[in-house]
Amino acid sequence: MKLLDLYAKMKGELNAIERQLEAAVAEDESLLGESSLHLLQAGGKRIRPVFVLLAGRFGDYRLDELQRVAVTLELIHSASLVHDDVIDNARTRRGQPTVGAKWDNRIAMYTGDYIYAKALELMTQSRNPDLHRILARAMVQMCIGEMEQVRDFFNTEQSVRNYLRRIRRKTALLIAISCQMGAVASGADRQTSNLLYQFGYNTGMAFQIRDDLLDLLGTEKQIGKPPGSDIRQGNITLPVLLALQEPDRRDALLAEIGSIRESEGRGDTHTAIHLIRSSRGVAVAEEMAERFTSKALAALAGLPALPAKKNLSDIAHFINKRSY
Amino acid sequence: MKLLDLYAKMKGELNAIERQLEAAVAEDESLLGESSLHLLQAGGKRIRPVFVLLAGRFGDYRLDELQRVAVTLELIHSASLVHDDVIDNARTRRGQPTVGAKWDNRIAMYTGDYIYAKALELMTQSRNPDLHRILARAMVQMCIGEMEQVRDFFNTEQSVRNYLRRIRRKTALLIAISCQMGAVASGADRQTSNLLYQFGYNTGMAFQIRDDLLDLLGTEKQIGKPPGSDIRQGNITLPVLLALQEPDRRDALLAEIGSIRESEGRGDTHTAIHLIRSSRGVAVAEEMAERFTSKALAALAGLPALPAKKNLSDIAHFINKRSY
Repeated sequence: MKLLDLYAKMKGELNAIERQLEAAVAEDESLLGESSLHLLQAGGKRIRPVFVLLAGRFGDYRLDELQRVAVTLELIHSASLVHDDVIDNARTRRGQPTVGAKWDNRIAMYTGDYIYAKALELMTQSRNPDLHRILARAMVQMCIGEMEQVRDFFNTEQSVRNYLRRIRRKTALLIAISCQMGAVASGADRQTSNLLYQFGYNTGMAFQIRDDLLDLLGTEKQIGKPPGSDIRQGNITLPVLLALQEPDRRDALLAEIGSIRESEGRGDTHTAIHLIRSSRGVAVAEEMAERFTSKALAALAGLPALPAKKNLSDIAHFINKRSY
Repeated sequence: MKLLDLYAKMKGELNAIERQLEAAVAEDESLLGESSLHLLQAGGKRIRPVFVLLAGRFGDYRLDELQRVAVTLELIHSASLVHDDVIDNARTRRGQPTVGAKWDNRIAMYTGDYIYAKALELMTQSRNPDLHRILARAMVQMCIGEMEQVRDFFNTEQSVRNYLRRIRRKTALLIAISCQMGAVASGADRQTSNLLYQFGYNTGMAFQIRDDLLDLLGTEKQIGKPPGSDIRQGNITLPVLLALQEPDRRDALLAEIGSIRESEGRGDTHTAIHLIRSSRGVAVAEEMAERFTSKALAALAGLPALPAKKNLSDIAHFINKRSY
């Protein structure tokens, strides 16, 4: 099944999630309600809710509990985005002005705090302490990941291992717990929820590596922002680290990154991008994404042959084939 | 009993809280652990833990659960402080450089996020869903309060009612739930926890009004920062609103506030402070603080005559007599 068909099939459930997302942040006479709604209405693929709902099929499908988990996780994702945008001083996201651009960065920071708090308020409506614990632990790790990203800005000496640990916390973990919590919320057994966690974790790793490749290889139209945004911000991604390992381009690339850094985000990234694109880094990063996808599919293999299994497999394949 | 004697009596319990606060944020190889520790070690009166522990005396004193609540609430208070300091671009707090000054404001924002997440992780170790719900609801309201403060900066047209609603969310609520959660964590009955909530709420209101008065009437030595910090930031407090109601000084005070605003925090506040100090606003604000303290003591009156009742009453009296 194509991904669009899956979204069409899940339309009713996803529309309900959309309404609940908006209801969660609606607050009378509060500017925070308004700024949060602005953020949520800018949309997104709602991939975390999709994972929650599909994972729930492997247990005794409990729609109200699953919706709560799905809305909570999408809120947490949105809150982390708005704080990211403060850090990057981003002006647009998904073609819309950011909260920082439409209001200011102070309001953006409190909007993030508010959405985090709203997410937790929603989660406390569930009586399952396992859900609370999984979520709280993941949030701590996610914060560390966000922080590591800031700490590692323009650090060209970091290892590939360092990069992988960072994207694990920053991205893969929330996708992993989307799958895990969907299973737990539906009372699936521990082996099932562990396999779904593994599926989500490896899919999330592949997703972030592909996303980082897209930023270097895509066109502005494909990615909704100029290519090279990561390197302009100082976010040193996997293909860059791999290109830096090649003796014939290391010095040139270091010099380019140094001048991008000095220009404080206004510098030209063409030469740097050319050096990376023409390195082996792209192919090796693609191989690593393939490997994570294979591991995700291997985890799925241990699950019963439900339609949701095929849907999850389709999503993993889709993520691994993002075109650029 | 004097307040210092109470702290001396509770020294063992408070030292344990201190160690747990530090342990809560300790995280290997994480800059966030370091920045959080810096924040926590700058100290503070730990008044929220004191309220939690004293409120716990009205039930079946459960030390481990009470400590969890106490540490959680102090962490949440600390996280809100570090985000406040980002908003105000504050350079020092309690005589120490802020996280923003020692590192930068991006790190300060993530330090706040991390401490919030750590607080929630700790709270999920409790199996009492009432505690989770009380906390999550209060956090949402606190965020709205923080936001209202930003929205109302330099708004000289706001009502006294607006001010009271803001400090309720910003300050009184966390103190109210410190008392309430202490009671709930120890299994006290609903009437007891409600009375303790009322005590905490009214004490918190008196505390914030006194704090706002102190910023106008205290010396730099007493308050640890130059007087008039609030007005310099645009935080229009109760005595200012009341002074603005006096026809013989309204225009002069508006003009002063306008020029403080234009100077972006570097202006002279002497004339403004003189206009406020010499108004009836100070006495009326003091009366309001008195009234909240009386309500706090009235709530206490409904509780059994334990030593903790006298301790809480002593704290309420102390807060109401903060010298300036």
